[in-house]
Amino acid sequence: MSKIPHRLYLTEEQMPTQWYNLRADMKDQPDPIINPGTMKPAQVEDLYPVFCEKLAQQEMDAETRYFDIPEEVLEMYKIYRPSPLIRAYNLEKALDTPAKIYFKFEGNNTSGSHKLNSAIAQAYYAKEQGLAGLTTETGAGQWGTALSEACAYFGLPLTVFMVKVSYEQKPFRKAVMETFGSSVIASPSETTNIGREILKNDPTTGGSLGCAISEAVEKAVTSPNYRYVLGSVLNQVLLHQSIIGLETKAAMEILGEYPDIIVGCAGGGSNLGGLIAPFMQDKLTGKANPRIVAVEPASCPSFTRGTYAYDFCDTGRITPMAKMYTLGSDFKPSANHAGGLRYHGMSPILSKLYHDGYMEAVAVEQTKVFEAAVQFAKLETILPAPESSHAIRGAIDEALKCKESGEAKTILFGLTGTGYFDMTAYTSYNEGTMNDYIPTDADLERSLATLPKIPGIQE
Amino acid sequence: MSKIPHRLYLTEEQMPTQWYNLRADMKDQPDPIINPGTMKPAQVEDLYPVFCEKLAQQEMDAETRYFDIPEEVLEMYKIYRPSPLIRAYNLEKALDTPAKIYFKFEGNNTSGSHKLNSAIAQAYYAKEQGLAGLTTETGAGQWGTALSEACAYFGLPLTVFMVKVSYEQKPFRKAVMETFGSSVIASPSETTNIGREILKNDPTTGGSLGCAISEAVEKAVTSPNYRYVLGSVLNQVLLHQSIIGLETKAAMEILGEYPDIIVGCAGGGSNLGGLIAPFMQDKLTGKANPRIVAVEPASCPSFTRGTYAYDFCDTGRITPMAKMYTLGSDFKPSANHAGGLRYHGMSPILSKLYHDGYMEAVAVEQTKVFEAAVQFAKLETILPAPESSHAIRGAIDEALKCKESGEAKTILFGLTGTGYFDMTAYTSYNEGTMNDYIPTDADLERSLATLPKIPGIQE
Repeated sequence: MSKIPHRLYLTEEQMPTQWYNLRADMKDQPDPIINPGTMKPAQVEDLYPVFCEKLAQQEMDAETRYFDIPEEVLEMYKIYRPSPLIRAYNLEKALDTPAKIYFKFEGNNTSGSHKLNSAIAQAYYAKEQGLAGLTTETGAGQWGTALSEACAYFGLPLTVFMVKVSYEQKPFRKAVMETFGSSVIASPSETTNIGREILKNDPTTGGSLGCAISEAVEKAVTSPNYRYVLGSVLNQVLLHQSIIGLETKAAMEILGEYPDIIVGCAGGGSNLGGLIAPFMQDKLTGKANPRIVAVEPASCPSFTRGTYAYDFCDTGRITPMAKMYTLGSDFKPSANHAGGLRYHGMSPILSKLYHDGYMEAVAVEQTKVFEAAVQFAKLETILPAPESSHAIRGAIDEALKCKESGEAKTILFGLTGTGYFDMTAYTSYNEGTMNDYIPTDADLERSLATLPKIPGIQE
Repeated sequence: MSKIPHRLYLTEEQMPTQWYNLRADMKDQPDPIINPGTMKPAQVEDLYPVFCEKLAQQEMDAETRYFDIPEEVLEMYKIYRPSPLIRAYNLEKALDTPAKIYFKFEGNNTSGSHKLNSAIAQAYYAKEQGLAGLTTETGAGQWGTALSEACAYFGLPLTVFMVKVSYEQKPFRKAVMETFGSSVIASPSETTNIGREILKNDPTTGGSLGCAISEAVEKAVTSPNYRYVLGSVLNQVLLHQSIIGLETKAAMEILGEYPDIIVGCAGGGSNLGGLIAPFMQDKLTGKANPRIVAVEPASCPSFTRGTYAYDFCDTGRITPMAKMYTLGSDFKPSANHAGGLRYHGMSPILSKLYHDGYMEAVAVEQTKVFEAAVQFAKLETILPAPESSHAIRGAIDEALKCKESGEAKTILFGLTGTGYFDMTAYTSYNEGTMNDYIPTDADLERSLATLPKIPGIQE
């Protein structure tokens, strides 16, 4: 038997007490967000009507390398953290690979994913600011659940706009959010101007994240003392999610390990950005040079087939514009796309790093993803979320390459969550009725034609 | 801040490597099981047609105090164990109680409950004996899921008879079992003689655990080289589940703690028996005297309103008879009873200990249980299973008594699992449509009238 344990949990004393801000080590900064009102780079004050002040400041801060995690947030982290770093011995054996496979498992909390790490931070700052409540959107439902938990804990009312297709596919996700006291509305809805507009043009639409964001922002800015929060994409979210990578790196140091390859699933970038943060720091500062691989769905391929350009973060085009890999703000993945990772854009930080060659990206089809998910579940007895299973697919593919080359590389991947609310998708995979879908070039051309024009910046 | 961490995980080296057999310390033994064919105490060989030989031997062994956990079982335990011992700081604060509240959380694995601890052991011994496959029943679905995981891991085919009312309430539970490769059949079914018989008499029945057991046993004994396995009630199951209590006791020793009160939910007794095992050893050997409180549903009150008598373990009356607290083998909880803990009987070991005054029992109504569940979820961010929430209810009630008396007692409870597949029940609670149901005396009289007669033993 190996001396490396199956699971390593840091002790409470070993847990990080600061978040790490990746931008502080980027010599080339992401391009600034643009205020659509002025068509100029946004100032922090421009964000205050939409975001909490502290969060807006974190959003804009490219200087501060480490932020102290507030005591109240740390206390709540300790209820479900540290999350384990797990050695996938059974998977290694089944693949007959010389590679060592580790994964950081973020699914052991009721939200079922890493999203809780940022939800707690955002709810805490909202409470601290004395807000009356929050709004947000959710796609697959993990973020809405996580924020519902956090808001229940801090006693803040929450309205969640849930992408209609998920709302219908996942009635029990809604029930969990309601158990924590949230209001859940299928998006697009009749409760906002933007929702009504979208429904007028497309009454049977299943909705999209971009559209749900528009509704949540509208609801926040039209409700007294409300603000809007977002579970991915934003710089502040990557900051909070750095706890994943910091814990992982500390645990690997205890084991005397360092990853050669880091694999993460990529939707808006919250988990990937958090997982890789301290390793990317090593890359940026020349201390180490691990390969970093983003795995995205072939049906929503922002990195691999999107354009690096300024775009709106929402379908209703009311949010600031960010320079990112995007498929166009009204891109919608095919209805047969299961689970999350359905956002049209990508974290501006990760977009910049990808553009500058610090990371790679691959797109995978969903039947291949579920094949990996079921193989993993049987071997490691964790039923993974469809999103997380993209990383499993990527890690297995890298481990199989090691088998071919005979290299005993150390692979680390992020297992963001569990699939208990995704059984409709698993059933369609089990029954052989799941399809793959890849948008055509014409599809992408159409949605990319909606990119905004910004005088002097993007003509 | 207290020095006691929120969560304590033992290290791999600190994990128990033996199961503890409570019977070895019982001066007064449970009465022997009776073979319905001979009406005499069963011999171990009598069990071989139904159970694996090693498991049958464990079932009958009242002498061996400790059993080594096989290396293969330990390896699989390490994939998801040790489970954390958690201090419920937020709950303590919200209750404003001087009591310290700890819970052992068994829900952080895909089966969502402690059931996996025995499933792995049973699947391992079945594989070791070279069996062709296994059958079992499941009520709420945790056991079926756990055994599906274990059988997938050891490569054993599995047929699960799932109580029809659960099968219909919880389609996603079925999907999880199928993802792990099991066949799932709603019980009663047309696939067995007993199922057909029961359906003939009551075509619209929602089924019961007792009936599903009958079908699973029939299927096992009529399929070549198959055996039947059971997730609760049996002595062997309590043996395997002792890992819960052993880990808990080791963790509490590290913290310098010992429980004054131990609270567990009670259906068939698998979690309760496992959790209390080493503490009951202390009671039996005079080393300590914690209070032990079983919490059961008012709608299925075997301890508090059942009779201590010989009864069949199944509705079809084909299993051996055991002396236990029972409501009669054709007792069915009301259809509005949500979740598990719906078995008509109770572990013979626990029944004997309760009868001899080593433990207490209380029955609670389900709206009170869900009230505790929602309060707990909001404070501790774990969405508990309805079964587990009986223990939460019991622990909260004990903590409130401490508040009244001003006593700073140490309360330990078992949180057996998560409620992700129980959202139908949560929704009915949230919407105010959940009812309580308590069987009438006439109901119990009727079902207890079916107790078997055993010449010279129970006339």
